[in-house]
Amino acid sequence: MNAFIVYAHPESQSFNGALLRRSVETLHAGGHEVRVSDLYAMRFDPVSDRRNFTGRKDPAYFKQQIEELHAVETAGFAPDLAAEMEKLRWCDLLILHFPLWWFGLPGILKGWVDRVFAMGFAYGGGRWYTKGPFVGKRALLCLTTGGPAAIYGPDGLNGDIHQILFPIQHGMLFFTGFNVLPPFIAWSVARATDAERRAYLDVWGERLRTGFEDAPIAFPPLEAYDETFRLRRAP
Amino acid sequence: MNAFIVYAHPESQSFNGALLRRSVETLHAGGHEVRVSDLYAMRFDPVSDRRNFTGRKDPAYFKQQIEELHAVETAGFAPDLAAEMEKLRWCDLLILHFPLWWFGLPGILKGWVDRVFAMGFAYGGGRWYTKGPFVGKRALLCLTTGGPAAIYGPDGLNGDIHQILFPIQHGMLFFTGFNVLPPFIAWSVARATDAERRAYLDVWGERLRTGFEDAPIAFPPLEAYDETFRLRRAP
Repeated sequence: MNAFIVYAHPESQSFNGALLRRSVETLHAGGHEVRVSDLYAMRFDPVSDRRNFTGRKDPAYFKQQIEELHAVETAGFAPDLAAEMEKLRWCDLLILHFPLWWFGLPGILKGWVDRVFAMGFAYGGGRWYTKGPFVGKRALLCLTTGGPAAIYGPDGLNGDIHQILFPIQHGMLFFTGFNVLPPFIAWSVARATDAERRAYLDVWGERLRTGFEDAPIAFPPLEAYDETFRLRRAP
Repeated sequence: MNAFIVYAHPESQSFNGALLRRSVETLHAGGHEVRVSDLYAMRFDPVSDRRNFTGRKDPAYFKQQIEELHAVETAGFAPDLAAEMEKLRWCDLLILHFPLWWFGLPGILKGWVDRVFAMGFAYGGGRWYTKGPFVGKRALLCLTTGGPAAIYGPDGLNGDIHQILFPIQHGMLFFTGFNVLPPFIAWSVARATDAERRAYLDVWGERLRTGFEDAPIAFPPLEAYDETFRLRRAP
């Protein structure tokens, strides 16, 4: 299997860094190929605009999707984006490794999605959700939080973690066709003991050894919606 | 009233640009002071790491919150962040102007939150939610979408827009103390007619003339949660 890891943390000695190293070791030990985009180490630029392209379709007005479709036709993506797109085509499994910052992806990773998930490449022309370009691939979030599990429960002060992750898991990953496996969440690691951290690493390693066949999150497929994009009623 | 607008769109001729100009005109006409952070025009850097600081508390290990608390004590924030923090202190109303990209803030704006909403400035030490530093200020999202309203309904294919905006409205704005006014959403503007776009601008202008006293979104206050951060049951 080909595993593509996108990692976003500014400190390699952090617990996120330890999770990343455990991922690479475990996947290699399982005989898998691994590529890592370490966005901070690469100095990845997360600002999306004309820098995404080597040419331009409309010099007078910048409409990103128009330029994206043009770039698909002309191989006109900037080299940093083309490299990421190639890794997405190559992979069978995508893992996003990140700390939950302000209830979402760190800016450097959000901008990676903004720039790399281009129209004509990651969606478009009726290719979305269960007809998306990445159908047949799996994706998985591996994240850390500041707060404890209870604060992210259904009645928790910070809101339900599944609701908070919905824009990522459903809006970015399921939208483009991935089967989204349940997330791995290490809660409140800044306050965890060394033993708790080691236990998290072991649980994560075990997930990566055996978890690829986990049932994906059961988002309704595209066919469950009518022509106005509303969920069909049971007959 | 002092209004602070943070605007994130790469094309000034876009409909987002038109909404921004309508905001500035309408607020000026109402006698309000207005400051605008046009993140693309400013070439704002959305990558959060040691660049946020002029000094360092711990040169051997980068823990952002530790460095943030140190920067609060030593006036050690980088000039680009200090300028944004001053505008946040100054304002009575914060408006975030953006296109919804991948079900969230554009990377440049997400990174603005990651960097500017520093511990010790925007939260920390028990100051959060209805005890947050920005209590008494109001905030408001003004956004555009690609999809139509129906696809963002409670049973819509893309998910409920209120769920999608929860990490922003509750997680970023309410978390830091803002009263969050209902969002202004211009649906599917790329497919709208000129008349529909003019109507959106007029509705938005009218909101800005009269809407400051709208009831905020009724998120439960901090006191509604128990010591484990779970919502108290009705007695």
